[in-house]
Parts: sequence; structure tokens; C-alpha cells
Amino acid sequence: MSVTSGPKTARRWFVNETPKGDLTDTTLALRDEPLRDLEAGEFLVRSIYLSLDATNRVWLSTFDHYMPPLLPGDPMRGFLVGEVIESRNEAFPTGSLAVGIHTWSDYFVTDGTDFSVYPGVDGLPLSDFFGVMTVAAPTAYHGLIEMAKPQPGETVVVTAAAGAVGALVGQMAKIAGCRVVGVAGGTDKCAYLVNELGFDAAVDYKSEPILEGLERACPDGIDVHFENVGGEALDAGLTLASQGARVIICGLISSYNNDVQDDGVKMIRNMIFRRIRMEGFVILDYLDQYPRYYEAILPWIAEGKLKYRLHVVDGIENALDALKLLYTGGNNGKLMVRIGDEAVRA
Amino acid sequence: MSVTSGPKTARRWFVNETPKGDLTDTTLALRDEPLRDLEAGEFLVRSIYLSLDATNRVWLSTFDHYMPPLLPGDPMRGFLVGEVIESRNEAFPTGSLAVGIHTWSDYFVTDGTDFSVYPGVDGLPLSDFFGVMTVAAPTAYHGLIEMAKPQPGETVVVTAAAGAVGALVGQMAKIAGCRVVGVAGGTDKCAYLVNELGFDAAVDYKSEPILEGLERACPDGIDVHFENVGGEALDAGLTLASQGARVIICGLISSYNNDVQDDGVKMIRNMIFRRIRMEGFVILDYLDQYPRYYEAILPWIAEGKLKYRLHVVDGIENALDALKLLYTGGNNGKLMVRIGDEAVRA
Repeated sequence: MSVTSGPKTARRWFVNETPKGDLTDTTLALRDEPLRDLEAGEFLVRSIYLSLDATNRVWLSTFDHYMPPLLPGDPMRGFLVGEVIESRNEAFPTGSLAVGIHTWSDYFVTDGTDFSVYPGVDGLPLSDFFGVMTVAAPTAYHGLIEMAKPQPGETVVVTAAAGAVGALVGQMAKIAGCRVVGVAGGTDKCAYLVNELGFDAAVDYKSEPILEGLERACPDGIDVHFENVGGEALDAGLTLASQGARVIICGLISSYNNDVQDDGVKMIRNMIFRRIRMEGFVILDYLDQYPRYYEAILPWIAEGKLKYRLHVVDGIENALDALKLLYTGGNNGKLMVRIGDEAVRA
Repeated sequence: MSVTSGPKTARRWFVNETPKGDLTDTTLALRDEPLRDLEAGEFLVRSIYLSLDATNRVWLSTFDHYMPPLLPGDPMRGFLVGEVIESRNEAFPTGSLAVGIHTWSDYFVTDGTDFSVYPGVDGLPLSDFFGVMTVAAPTAYHGLIEMAKPQPGETVVVTAAAGAVGALVGQMAKIAGCRVVGVAGGTDKCAYLVNELGFDAAVDYKSEPILEGLERACPDGIDVHFENVGGEALDAGLTLASQGARVIICGLISSYNNDVQDDGVKMIRNMIFRRIRMEGFVILDYLDQYPRYYEAILPWIAEGKLKYRLHVVDGIENALDALKLLYTGGNNGKLMVRIGDEAVRA
């Protein structure tokens, strides 16, 4: 059986050159590719949303990290949700929605590896489920609740606090009864954290050194430091750590574009003096725990305890420009690209 | 009751100036001090051994650490064992041996806070018990066995491996069935680790960059990195860490003399990519666990599975020069000062 109703070509982003430092207009290139016929077990997906995540930049790096690096000539990789429009795989019938990891493409063929069928959640639009529940909310839940185990009355600091993960971390820490301080760039983002998300305080790293801001906002020290940025922010967290503090390393976006490979952390000595536990994680290791996490998270969303913003950029051709926003703080909320309409095309 | 049989004065080391960088001849000063009469609950101790430990330098630093800093005019602090020669404290009768934390003195009066009675261990001389069991062996046991939980077949790296703690860490890791690599300074120390203590390999940081040496000695990466030194060594450990590695921060002797307060660790990103857990500790937090640790450690010593060397310097007047050896790697084994004879004086 060959593809009958779908297109014969796909638009697909490829790695054009390994970036040195910041992403540029020539890091990736969008090309048309022929779509091959389906083999047994495969299906054809029409992409709806592509998730943009800080770790995308890591995948483009040639230093040794947690995935095979994407090299020039490789298709760019990302989280997507799309509609199955042709199928030779019973687990993914035509008309179902598939969520998983594949190429940045408007159409693609897969055998279902790294994909699951989107089950649908009452009251939660596809955009919201995909934007929040695919990466951000499980990441926040695993890192904060499972790893850091915040206790009522403790002080929790989160960096990139207005970002997709950070905003959820702060709100989950409030649910856990903690005092919550966010670090973000700009007065608008800081006001959003305090006024709309209920953070107790926010530090604007664009207006003052992070250490000074956190010293003022955390008079009793930091019990849990949830790090999405690294560098100066992480060093400030170690400096102000309380006895027995937990430092969760979720992301180090400040160093991903940095060829020097120096994350700029000085205050390692406090690992001893403050009896700190520092731990890193990759959420892909915990996909099998998602059902358990969803049980906790979905009611919080339904009850309005977890708010979020989606930053949706239209058009696959704008995916590279959109990704750059992540590293300049130019996004407001979870960044994703709408590649195709949610409604099935005629 | 006043002191009748003891001396009326004590020789005692005081802080003379807060060191900037390395210890100097004027950092501490030895003075005669009058010994006051005993009050109810107090006893007079004749010091026998003083333990010299890397953390002594930390106590002299004015940055915020885990103990009140020692300032000019304060008596210098250390672990000691001595004979009770006068007592108004039933728990420490005359003739008993007291182990604890006090001033660097040949005689001192205490109410027993931070002291315990030395119980005596069959077959283990006082010098050995004090040198090994007061700090070094519980530190090695807690950090390696309790925190890192090494598994058979894993690769364990320990720095300052010929030091008091490091040598025991390596041997305990061998008992646990691990491949053990030590980092030490000089061919003699490295030969000692491999030939006498049974390490699988040793890296001489004086003859090559630590990263290069560890890359060669740890072809399968590092599962447990036990850090006593910090800086370049810790960065190398993070660089070569295996998935799920545990990094135990026991000491950072390379930075204790460093006013810049930069511990020189760059490879923080591997906390994420290798899913590393890094944790610091202070053994003083676990004094109540010592009986349990001793149950495991003493049989190993009796069976000859844990070897150690004592580096004993004679005379309280040489204590400052002896302490300097710790920071130049000039000691061979557990460094201690013999202040008085083990046998009771007439």
C-alpha cells in the first residue's frame, strides 16, 4: 500500500552547520524531501504542533551529551504531535493523534518508535496538553516533587521562572506550602510571576546581580534551588544554600551556546559546608512514570492551581527563528510551532 | 578542689593572624597560659596526640563555613586524645583517656563537652585508634559506603588517595568489589597505592594532567568519585563520570588556601547529561553513628584488609609546621602530633 491521500513531499528542517555559540540563520535549513511509501508497521503523520525546548540546542552540540549529536545533514529533531493520515500500524489507526519524537517536518513516516497515541483529556485542548504535559509539567513534577521533596515553609528558588518549566515549578512549590522566589528577565515577567502565578518574590536579573536579588528575597537562605539556567544563577544558589539544601539541575541554558564549556560555578565548597545534594536529570528517563505524574498534575490544572501560557508561532518556516527566542528570553510561556491545523483537513 | 598534681601553666597555640592563602610562620603563635582551678564537672587533661586535618585550615577562614571561624586571639582548635590527670567529673575519672575537640594545648581544662572516654580496642594501639578511628575511617565509611553505595564491578576514583581518608576509601572500595583508581602526588605515593594497598591503578598528578591520567585508568568511566582535593581533580571526575555517577565531596583542600573562592569546576553540565548526584558532608554530623561504623571497620583492620600509615610529628612546638605539610602533600599517612607520652608520667 502506498500513500494515497497525503502529499508526495514533506518540508523538513535539516542541520546545515554545527553552531559555534548562538544559533544563526544558517544553523538549520528547510528543504523539501520526497515522502516514501509506507512499509508494514509504519504510518504517515501530518504534524500539528512542534515543541521547542532548551535541550534542542544541546542536541546540536558535538560534545558528549545524553543523545547522539545531530550533525550537518541530519534532520532536526523535536517533540511533535500530529494526526495519523495513513497507517499500516494497528496501534496508530488513521485519524488518531500521535505524540512523540521525530524530525521537524510537516509530514513524516514512522514505525511508532518513541511515539504514543494521544488519549485526549477532558477539558484540556490539544495545544495545552501537548505544550504542558509532554515535557514541561512532568519535568517540573519529577525534579521538584520527586527529587527535591520540598517541605512546607521551605524556600524554593527557580530560575527561568517565567519559562515553561520554571512557572510550573514555582506553582507546584506553592502547592507544597513553600515560599517561592523566581528569577526572570524583565519587569513584565517578574510582575507576572508575583501577580498572576502567586510567587512570593521575583528577582529581575536584568536589573541587578542575581546574588544581591536572592539575598534580599531569601533572608532565611535557599532550601531548594531548581536550576534551568546555570552560571551566575547556580553560583548564587550555592552561595545562599541552607543546611541540607537540594539543588536540582534541570537545565543550563546559559552554557548551551557557550564554547568555553565553563559553567562558571565557583561556590562548590558549600557542597560541604551546607551539606548540599546536587542532582541532575533528563526527563526522558522517566517516560514510564508519566501516568503517575499526570494523576497528580491534571487535577491541579483542572482546579486552576497550575496556570501556564503558550507561546505559539505559526508556520514550520518560522521554527528556527522561534527556537532562537528561547536563548534570548524572548518567549512568553511554552514555545511551540503550529505546523498544521488541529482540525482535520478536507 | 584545685589542681594539685598537674602543672600551673599550659602551652597553647593561638591564632595570631587570619591567613590569606597559605599558612605562614606567623599564622599561629605558641604561648604559655595559666591553668585555672577545676570547677565542679570539669577535669584536667594531659594531651597525648593531636590530630591534624585538612579542615583545620577551613576553621581559620573568615568566610561562612560550618563552624564558628577562629579569629586572631582565639586558641587553635583540634581533635585530641589525652589522659585525665585531675577530675571533678565522674564520667571522666582520673586515669581515663578522653577523646574530643579542644585547643592545641599540652594541658587543658574541659567540662567534657565534645569529649568521650576512649574505651580501648583489643589489639589496636592508642595511636592507631586515635589516628584512624577518630576522623579518617568514619569519614571514609560514611562517604563511600553509606553515601556512594559502591557496587561490585564499578569504578571508584579517590583523590588525595595516599592521605588518611583517601587510602581507606580505596581499600573499602576494594572490599566492596570495585575497580579502584587513586590520584596522588609523586611516584612513591602512587607505587604505595598499587603495591601495598591493592589499588588497581594510580594517577600521579605531578607527572601528568589528572584528566589524561584518569582517562587512561578509567576506560569505562567513573561510577563513584570521592573528592578530597577539588579543582582540576573534581572537574576531571565530572568529565569522566558514568551515567548515574555519585560524586562525594568530602574535602576541597586545593581551595582552602585560595582567596579567590573559585573552586575551578567547569563541567557542571554533566550533572544533567550523566545524571550525576553530587553530595557534600561533614563527618561531625554523624558522631552518633560511629558505633555502627566501628562494627564494620574494626574487623577489617583486624583482618588486615585496611592498612594505614601514621605520620607522627613529635612535640607541640612543631604543630604548625606539621599542619603545613597537609597542604603541600608533604605528609605520608595520617598526620598527628605527639604532644605527650602514652605512658603516664610519674
